[in-house]
Amino acid sequence: MKIGIVGLGLIGGSLGFDLRDRGHIVYGVSRKESTCQRAIERGAVDEANISLKSLQNVDIIFICTPMGKIDSTVKNIISDLNPNTIITDVGSVKTPIVKQCEQLWNNFVGGHPMAGTAEQGIEAAQKNLFKNAPYVITPTEKTPRNSIKILENLARSLDSTVYTCSPENHDQAVAWISHLPVMISASLIASCLGETDQNVITLAQQLASSGFKDTSRVGGGNPELGVMMAEYNQQALLKALQGYRQQLEQIIEKIDEKEWQSLEQLLIKTQEERSRFIH
Amino acid sequence: MKIGIVGLGLIGGSLGFDLRDRGHIVYGVSRKESTCQRAIERGAVDEANISLKSLQNVDIIFICTPMGKIDSTVKNIISDLNPNTIITDVGSVKTPIVKQCEQLWNNFVGGHPMAGTAEQGIEAAQKNLFKNAPYVITPTEKTPRNSIKILENLARSLDSTVYTCSPENHDQAVAWISHLPVMISASLIASCLGETDQNVITLAQQLASSGFKDTSRVGGGNPELGVMMAEYNQQALLKALQGYRQQLEQIIEKIDEKEWQSLEQLLIKTQEERSRFIH
Repeated sequence: MKIGIVGLGLIGGSLGFDLRDRGHIVYGVSRKESTCQRAIERGAVDEANISLKSLQNVDIIFICTPMGKIDSTVKNIISDLNPNTIITDVGSVKTPIVKQCEQLWNNFVGGHPMAGTAEQGIEAAQKNLFKNAPYVITPTEKTPRNSIKILENLARSLDSTVYTCSPENHDQAVAWISHLPVMISASLIASCLGETDQNVITLAQQLASSGFKDTSRVGGGNPELGVMMAEYNQQALLKALQGYRQQLEQIIEKIDEKEWQSLEQLLIKTQEERSRFIH
Repeated sequence: MKIGIVGLGLIGGSLGFDLRDRGHIVYGVSRKESTCQRAIERGAVDEANISLKSLQNVDIIFICTPMGKIDSTVKNIISDLNPNTIITDVGSVKTPIVKQCEQLWNNFVGGHPMAGTAEQGIEAAQKNLFKNAPYVITPTEKTPRNSIKILENLARSLDSTVYTCSPENHDQAVAWISHLPVMISASLIASCLGETDQNVITLAQQLASSGFKDTSRVGGGNPELGVMMAEYNQQALLKALQGYRQQLEQIIEKIDEKEWQSLEQLLIKTQEERSRFIH
């Protein structure tokens, strides 16, 4: 197939490597000429161009820009596009993107390859990034069945595990397992800083070890990414946060009322249930 | 020195290995004859006995029993003890233990070597467990200065980093960095289970990756240990939980009110401040 990739960062560049490896011809687009050059030099794309018009004859286009630019990119790309061309994206929140983009282009299929590294940009792009990682596809009633099939096959060819669900279910699931952890982890760090006794804070900093390190990790991550999650997935994240707050209230009450047996029952349950989330 | 160790589990056994290595003679006590035998066989102690009377002539005794048995062990041990004998413990909460034990024995010094593994018992005991780990010593106004000095020197000889503070400051610091993380991490797991849409839970379990894994780790740990922390450190933990709840409310409000700039400021701060807790 002829495949277009808009945005040659970590995800776009890594997709390029693997799709070329599977025999496709990959046309990259980046706003920066220098990124186009590097993507070609590194072998992530066959050709690269700063103009979206270079993608007029491809079969499928992956929009790999930051989330805030997905809909405007689709708007700019569709003016001269063959209606058979499939457009898909890789945004980490799906409901608002799918809603906007399928109004712009009938042949749009939402997607979310759940892989990454701490690094960004074309230099961080790598082969096999998506191997064994989930690739979530989020069609709606309007999405052409054949286009879903084509994206599923491409995702499987990356050795990803493909899941298909509604945009809403995707967003609520990632709110629980990805966006909520960021907010509760950030709250941990922030609340420690609220300790008024400077001797206690200093001691806490000296004594903190693996438990604090792990629980605070995602709350100490990229601030822009955290805000973007909250902004795009506001409703699902608020639902998760409200459920979390209720649960926290219950734990505080058990400790306040010295209900040790009930607290132990809860901790036995969380110990058991955690294993269902860990692969 | 002649050193007694009561409780030949992970901590007691590991202390035995290192203290023997530093040239001391170590006398172990365990309730079980079989544990005494294994401690001798493994080389964790020079001699071992099921009777506390075997420790009548030692210079210092480390109480390494579970927290709930520290004060009763001190009660049982002191009947025929030379008043010069120092008693110390290794419990992970200090205020209630120090309060009880220094009433029973003037020459008591609270201590907390902050090392461990996921395993328990004499078979898990190992050399150099305390190397580069914090060893917190928690004297009060009543604690004999010379006894503090002796314990500090022993702790340093294990290559631990020694910190000295009040029992109250120790307990508040570990509430923030160790006990609070357990409760907020357990609340994460429990709140996910509150999702009523079974499709969303299943999807969340399928999609969960390193962020969820790290944030939920200590909440999926040993339930008895979690209850023990809450029970012994109730007041300091409640203070930390209340500070945490306020912080969480603020984050929820920012997201609810779409105060994205303010949320980003907070996440920039947590990203910066986390590094002070990570060594």
